[in-house]
Amino acid sequence: MTDERSALTASLRHHLDGPRRAARDEARRLDGAAFGHPPGPLPMSEHRTRVAAQVRELAKATFPAGGFPEHQGGTGRYGDSVTAFEMFGHLDLSLFVKAGVQWGLFGGAVSLLGLERHDALVPRIISGEAQGCFAMTETGHGSDVQGLLTTATFDPSADEIVVHSPEPAARKDYIGGAANDAQLAVVFAQLVIGGDSQGVHALLVPIRTDDGSPAPGVTISDCGDKLGLQGVDNGRLLFDHVRVPRTNLLGRYGDIAEDGTYSSPIENPNRRFFTMLGALVRGRISVAGGAGAAARSALTLATRYAAERTQFPAPGTGVEPVLLDYRTHQRRLLPRIAAAYGLLYAENELVGAMDDVLSGRVTDEQERRQLETRAAGIKVLTTRHTTDTIQECREACGGAGYMWANRFAWLKSDTDIFTTFEGDNTVLLQLVAKALLGEYEDTFGDLDTAGIVRFGARLAAGTVLERSAMRGLMQRIVDAAPGREEDVTFAIRGTQLRLLRDREEHLVETVARRLRRAQEPDGDTFAVFNNCQDHLVDAAEAHVERLVVEAFAAAVEECPDPDAQAVLVRVCDLHALTTIEKHKAWYVEHDRLSPARTKALTAYVNDICAELRPHATMLVDAFGIPDAWLTTEMLATS
Amino acid sequence: MTDERSALTASLRHHLDGPRRAARDEARRLDGAAFGHPPGPLPMSEHRTRVAAQVRELAKATFPAGGFPEHQGGTGRYGDSVTAFEMFGHLDLSLFVKAGVQWGLFGGAVSLLGLERHDALVPRIISGEAQGCFAMTETGHGSDVQGLLTTATFDPSADEIVVHSPEPAARKDYIGGAANDAQLAVVFAQLVIGGDSQGVHALLVPIRTDDGSPAPGVTISDCGDKLGLQGVDNGRLLFDHVRVPRTNLLGRYGDIAEDGTYSSPIENPNRRFFTMLGALVRGRISVAGGAGAAARSALTLATRYAAERTQFPAPGTGVEPVLLDYRTHQRRLLPRIAAAYGLLYAENELVGAMDDVLSGRVTDEQERRQLETRAAGIKVLTTRHTTDTIQECREACGGAGYMWANRFAWLKSDTDIFTTFEGDNTVLLQLVAKALLGEYEDTFGDLDTAGIVRFGARLAAGTVLERSAMRGLMQRIVDAAPGREEDVTFAIRGTQLRLLRDREEHLVETVARRLRRAQEPDGDTFAVFNNCQDHLVDAAEAHVERLVVEAFAAAVEECPDPDAQAVLVRVCDLHALTTIEKHKAWYVEHDRLSPARTKALTAYVNDICAELRPHATMLVDAFGIPDAWLTTEMLATS
Repeated sequence: MTDERSALTASLRHHLDGPRRAARDEARRLDGAAFGHPPGPLPMSEHRTRVAAQVRELAKATFPAGGFPEHQGGTGRYGDSVTAFEMFGHLDLSLFVKAGVQWGLFGGAVSLLGLERHDALVPRIISGEAQGCFAMTETGHGSDVQGLLTTATFDPSADEIVVHSPEPAARKDYIGGAANDAQLAVVFAQLVIGGDSQGVHALLVPIRTDDGSPAPGVTISDCGDKLGLQGVDNGRLLFDHVRVPRTNLLGRYGDIAEDGTYSSPIENPNRRFFTMLGALVRGRISVAGGAGAAARSALTLATRYAAERTQFPAPGTGVEPVLLDYRTHQRRLLPRIAAAYGLLYAENELVGAMDDVLSGRVTDEQERRQLETRAAGIKVLTTRHTTDTIQECREACGGAGYMWANRFAWLKSDTDIFTTFEGDNTVLLQLVAKALLGEYEDTFGDLDTAGIVRFGARLAAGTVLERSAMRGLMQRIVDAAPGREEDVTFAIRGTQLRLLRDREEHLVETVARRLRRAQEPDGDTFAVFNNCQDHLVDAAEAHVERLVVEAFAAAVEECPDPDAQAVLVRVCDLHALTTIEKHKAWYVEHDRLSPARTKALTAYVNDICAELRPHATMLVDAFGIPDAWLTTEMLATS
Repeated sequence: MTDERSALTASLRHHLDGPRRAARDEARRLDGAAFGHPPGPLPMSEHRTRVAAQVRELAKATFPAGGFPEHQGGTGRYGDSVTAFEMFGHLDLSLFVKAGVQWGLFGGAVSLLGLERHDALVPRIISGEAQGCFAMTETGHGSDVQGLLTTATFDPSADEIVVHSPEPAARKDYIGGAANDAQLAVVFAQLVIGGDSQGVHALLVPIRTDDGSPAPGVTISDCGDKLGLQGVDNGRLLFDHVRVPRTNLLGRYGDIAEDGTYSSPIENPNRRFFTMLGALVRGRISVAGGAGAAARSALTLATRYAAERTQFPAPGTGVEPVLLDYRTHQRRLLPRIAAAYGLLYAENELVGAMDDVLSGRVTDEQERRQLETRAAGIKVLTTRHTTDTIQECREACGGAGYMWANRFAWLKSDTDIFTTFEGDNTVLLQLVAKALLGEYEDTFGDLDTAGIVRFGARLAAGTVLERSAMRGLMQRIVDAAPGREEDVTFAIRGTQLRLLRDREEHLVETVARRLRRAQEPDGDTFAVFNNCQDHLVDAAEAHVERLVVEAFAAAVEECPDPDAQAVLVRVCDLHALTTIEKHKAWYVEHDRLSPARTKALTAYVNDICAELRPHATMLVDAFGIPDAWLTTEMLATS
């Protein structure tokens, strides 16, 4: 590598690493052999043993404490903690998930939903001494957490809460850590006091005795083998009138006093529920982070392979071009590299916003809600990108891609479930759509149409989701772009952003209009909703796509090194324009682009791919994945 | 199930099963526990042992003999054999592949490339006594078989052929059966006689001695663990001047006489090579068959799950609709079920054409070529459909889809490589495009432009690829449809076919025009080709998409039961229209459909999905996969 190229790579990496680069660098020092995926598939039990040991080892690092506030024995470095955790997405994803369950889900629930009386438990969670699991999902209800069937009934006579699974569908399912290691569970259940349900609450339930056998009344079973993540001990829990002290209720958003009365800082049960879930936003951000890392591993390997692998002699010369010289191969890899850049910048921004909220620097309700919406949306786009990208990279490496030694096998199998983790992607997009359509209660019947329309107008003006001055910059870029269709020049950033915003606004406004019918007296609410469901999901997707391109564009603007910036400008162009190209039918149908312009768009995207082709390996080198974490059999260089 | 529904299901199944339904029914009697995927992941070596035993057991069935002519000890029931084999795609895909290597690839090569002197080996191949592998792919060359590096040099003094791997890139790689079980290999190598290369030929090389150790000069290594297909013992072979008798040359298309002279029934070396490869067309047809079967397994499971799984209470009523009632879920599953129907009908037709050729009933050179082109194309579309469909089905089943017990795990992992098997899909599409662009020699430099343009015209007239009267029927259907854009009614079959043909013709004609530039004296041939590569691939895809819809349409026309036909008409509509919808940007860009019509198209596809929703489980029941082959933990009914 020339000095110049090496300096440019370092500069790109520095910028991609973002403000939490020290946390990334600390993670980069981890031994890939010790914390990476095993060199071959292990039987489930051996893989679990290996990962459990890795988690014990990781407890010594600084990142677990980062996820907790100082008054609970942590260091309050939330952003650093999530960023370090994201880097484990390059290592064994079973470890990533297992650590995420212990410190993120279980620890996070205790820390964020608990009260002062639970603080003493946190240091034992950080050290790994207290192992726990997060028992939310039930066999009968995955996505619909409000519909959980497990009950937690207060018994004032004993000052205890009775946890019970009233039917087989109430079984807690797929619970990471439940099958082997967890001593404690944070159980989500319908809290019943004096015969009245107060909605879903979380409470601590010991599920194992000191000798590791199931606690009385708790039936534990093992989910057994899975497609991937074989190092994670997913299990199932059934409760038969299991009694825990009243104080085991993680009562920050609803507690039972000594006198047996219930109180909550949030009056509205629905708002209470969503606030409680919202506190756990870190999970979605972390899943997106790990998924993005896995996609970058795949892109790095496939791009390096494509830069050295030949296939056929070229007609005319007989010289064999490398795969990357072929247009179809450039089309497979370069837009996905560009998307990986965009999603990483968006993730960096999201982690920053999360850090602001968790540290208490930001307390504004609307900003919290925005964070949750963005986290849901970025989780969807990133995990979808990851599934698609790893598949494409595997295929782009042919038979070599199928060999375990070349890593795609487990990258693919382990990340497959990320589209389902922390909420099915289709369900999450509807959550995003719901947020876009304004703040309303639990059913579409509650829609205030006027409010929706007003909301649409505010969105159009770009005021709702713009949280920083950076976004003001985006608005200036848009305003500076020529507005008339015949003037469309795809290389102008403002034009790109305007096209993406146009689509989002139109989709949101029109779906709001269609949903209005749900309020007509004899309308079949489900039918109206269902007829719009694809439209709703498209609107949400358009929104998140725009957010990602804006995050990318903002990062490019901020890049201090002009050489790196020049490259990033084109990578951002590629991402913005392939996003627009994906929807080109929409742009023509809605008269935003002429057929001649959309044809030109495809030609232009091809040109950018060819222009970036010489930078391809540099672009993936800039992901900064340690070579020792990416050993393969298929690469001559690595 | 009502009697009426059950009769309709049976009628649909009868029709889908096609003319070789007896072979399907014979396969359906296999014990799913004995021949299905193991109940949990096994260590590689145990899985291999299990599959090797299954293959020995299968040797007793009638299907292996079906793949060979009577004079070689077979029964010459080629179509039945491939159809039975296709059914194994519902069982353990390792078994599917391992059986395919033994009887299809290895046996097929001996049978079809060998001479009378090799006939005696065939009965021992059928019985499994002689185990073999198919050593074509090399580490350095996967797709480019003409560029293989292994040499087979005739030594007249010893009347032997010396097989040699001149460099590491010449290593035979990913060879199924090589790591453990194969005694013999059909090795593809450059045949060198008297210092002249005669191009790639196949010859028999013993790779193991009687005690199972590598034969002298043969180095065998193991590919080790893979993403899936862990029951297949893929290995690597290196040859160090390994000597075999001259008569080991499988000399049907080029033999060495006793006097050491080379002769071939085909003068042109390039044509000889493609004729030899063409003889092996069964491999691609079989891969498509197995992939299609796996996709149907996934669709059956996901559809049954969607028909009983609820998620959220509906707004208004509080009743929880099942997943299949949601539009987005209908959109996920129904178009893929429709595609599965189309691809199965196309596969049935392909198997029929293959049977005609292999049995010698059809000897026409052009029909043979068409078979090869269609086999390549259907293999691409089916394997791509399979990868996409199994992924979508896994996600559509959420966490349950990730559990090994629910089958998606191994369906996904095992079929992943099918997009690479028998030729990378992008490479195969270029092969299809090449065939579409006329019959020319090995380089784009040889293009006769006038010929291409003439070819385009013939294609437009629908004469080239129409092989049967059935296709004449398609032409009449097209002719009967209104031709003007404003009259487009999507429900008219002729309109659907005309739209698909329009696109194909336009893409082929325009790419032919662009490639003309490759002949200009100072044109950079590779650059011209490469600039058109995406266009070429699109043209090929459009061609195969049209073929599949036509095969589907023809099958619908032929359905004798009016009730079944009425359902099939709509399933075919759905497949044809989602294919057109996928390319709606193209149709608008090229002024074939107005923006208003493409918007109407999407609404109409949604309507068909809703209309077919009540039939959804019936449509997958009609795939006729034995219940005992589909046991899961996630389905209440199964």
